[in-house]
Amino acid sequence: MTTFLAGGTGTPKLLAGADGVFPPGETTVVGNTGDDVFLGGHLVCPDIDTVLFLDAEMLERERWWGVAGDTDETHRELTRLARKAGLSNGGAPRYLDERRQTEGRPLAAWRRFSAVDEFMLIGDRDRALHLTRTSLLDEGHTLTEATDLLADAYDLERTLLPMSDDPVASLVHVEGGPGRQPFQHFQEWWVGHRAEPPIDHVEFRGAETAVPTDEVLTALTDPVVLGPSNPVTSIGPMLAMDAFESALHETPVVVVSPFVGSEVYSGPATELMEAMGYEPSTAGVADAYPFADAFVLDRSDDTDLDRPVIHTDTSLDEDGDAERVALAVKDAMEVVG
Amino acid sequence: MTTFLAGGTGTPKLLAGADGVFPPGETTVVGNTGDDVFLGGHLVCPDIDTVLFLDAEMLERERWWGVAGDTDETHRELTRLARKAGLSNGGAPRYLDERRQTEGRPLAAWRRFSAVDEFMLIGDRDRALHLTRTSLLDEGHTLTEATDLLADAYDLERTLLPMSDDPVASLVHVEGGPGRQPFQHFQEWWVGHRAEPPIDHVEFRGAETAVPTDEVLTALTDPVVLGPSNPVTSIGPMLAMDAFESALHETPVVVVSPFVGSEVYSGPATELMEAMGYEPSTAGVADAYPFADAFVLDRSDDTDLDRPVIHTDTSLDEDGDAERVALAVKDAMEVVG
Repeated sequence: MTTFLAGGTGTPKLLAGADGVFPPGETTVVGNTGDDVFLGGHLVCPDIDTVLFLDAEMLERERWWGVAGDTDETHRELTRLARKAGLSNGGAPRYLDERRQTEGRPLAAWRRFSAVDEFMLIGDRDRALHLTRTSLLDEGHTLTEATDLLADAYDLERTLLPMSDDPVASLVHVEGGPGRQPFQHFQEWWVGHRAEPPIDHVEFRGAETAVPTDEVLTALTDPVVLGPSNPVTSIGPMLAMDAFESALHETPVVVVSPFVGSEVYSGPATELMEAMGYEPSTAGVADAYPFADAFVLDRSDDTDLDRPVIHTDTSLDEDGDAERVALAVKDAMEVVG
Repeated sequence: MTTFLAGGTGTPKLLAGADGVFPPGETTVVGNTGDDVFLGGHLVCPDIDTVLFLDAEMLERERWWGVAGDTDETHRELTRLARKAGLSNGGAPRYLDERRQTEGRPLAAWRRFSAVDEFMLIGDRDRALHLTRTSLLDEGHTLTEATDLLADAYDLERTLLPMSDDPVASLVHVEGGPGRQPFQHFQEWWVGHRAEPPIDHVEFRGAETAVPTDEVLTALTDPVVLGPSNPVTSIGPMLAMDAFESALHETPVVVVSPFVGSEVYSGPATELMEAMGYEPSTAGVADAYPFADAFVLDRSDDTDLDRPVIHTDTSLDEDGDAERVALAVKDAMEVVG
């Protein structure tokens, strides 16, 4: 068995074509939950959901989230109603006030948003996933159990695990003027405000008390692959749990850099790395991952690292790219495993 | 101003054609909330919603609930996922366990259902209403305020008020064998089990501490019309609040009987009246409404009552029916007002 740590779109893009190298039935994916939100009372787990839809062959693969061909009747009506009632602020996120952030369901803490004028586009079939998940929690299941039931529902061969059954919320502390809330939930900063304003630092609220599940700790005894995910908000929430990072020191770990030298493939990794005091580059990734045993870097990435490196073309745009990168990961694993 | 008390479909059917007699801008509707449910975490207010959709000219007028021409992508996907995950029990209601009924949001008490294998058909645009309402509660609004904002969103000229901002849950106590839950929420009994099994009695849980809002008490100082709604589960939850029934004794009240003699027009009023110890008939309705000052009865209903009666054809099936009944209500109001 091989365990992949997944957040954002980088690792799913690798998984999407890696089945011939890492058969799904022999892989576990541990999904980041730091960027989950409770939107209108429903738990949306973007990083888990991408893997569910990918393996169900339902994923919208232009944008790498949501369901291909989904309708958006509810979302459009939410927008219309908000406008008609004078409640719209242009689709900006409506983060609930501080007191309400910790009311009710503990798993929702620090990430509760109103669905009035819904700020994320949730498709109609996509929404059924969030409703089912939330109702499974209501019925008394843990998030791990709910995810396992959903994996059955979507016919996954893979084992899919949330990183924890406890709440961890990625909060982006921003450089704000007077009166501005000093932080934004990651989704608010990323989806709602398109990565504005500039970041001071990222907090993983809850991580000091959250623990990885037993299932995750067991999965971390297998060789571990970190795909080209953003080290701060995709992998950072996992590492923020002490037991998680400790486990990675005890197992072979191969990392695919999300950078080519200092150029990032996609997403907000550059700003986030800088805010956390890391160089936004492959060298910075290596600093952020002291437990990594080997790296897969792009052919044109000549970063000099103190650990084994396998070079290949690490782009993940065309058919065949993922298989090539997966083979490089396998080579790297043979070096360190 | 005139105030209508509305539950189920009887009173909405009267309102649907009464605008020429009772202009919407001069009417208040107080909606029953005893049959509301929190389904998958969203507050569904069937009796309020029917009035919202009616006045918005969006109501599906074959079945008198939901949105005409609505899609059901989310609902069908909820059903599919439940089946695939082995969680389906044929669309039967999934009432949360007793401990969870009173966890979290107080307004949800005793009416919390899972949306796994969603037992009520919620259309996609319909769902946007429940999501907006619930998020308005999350944002700190009362149900009265949320309803008022929704009335704006749907362009209502009418004033629409929930009977209370407190939870009242209509629980149908059933004649069950060993191991059977001794009660079912009204929606479970009515929608989920098609009015089976037989009823022992109906409890309005919460009514002893719930109070009508100030807005409702003010509306009850205007002349009041009870359309042909079911006295037990449509009007009963209102009357179960002492201050509500007291207010009706102080104001002119006209009742349109939902029966013709002992024949009910529609719905489960017969079984419910019997369970509550009333004769299932116009005479029983008069017993249930000691505060009523006059009645509108069908031409063929020769029930002898101790209060003034106006006769007309009380059927509400065709265009023109509602206006005819509304005119009879106005005549009755003139007798007692």
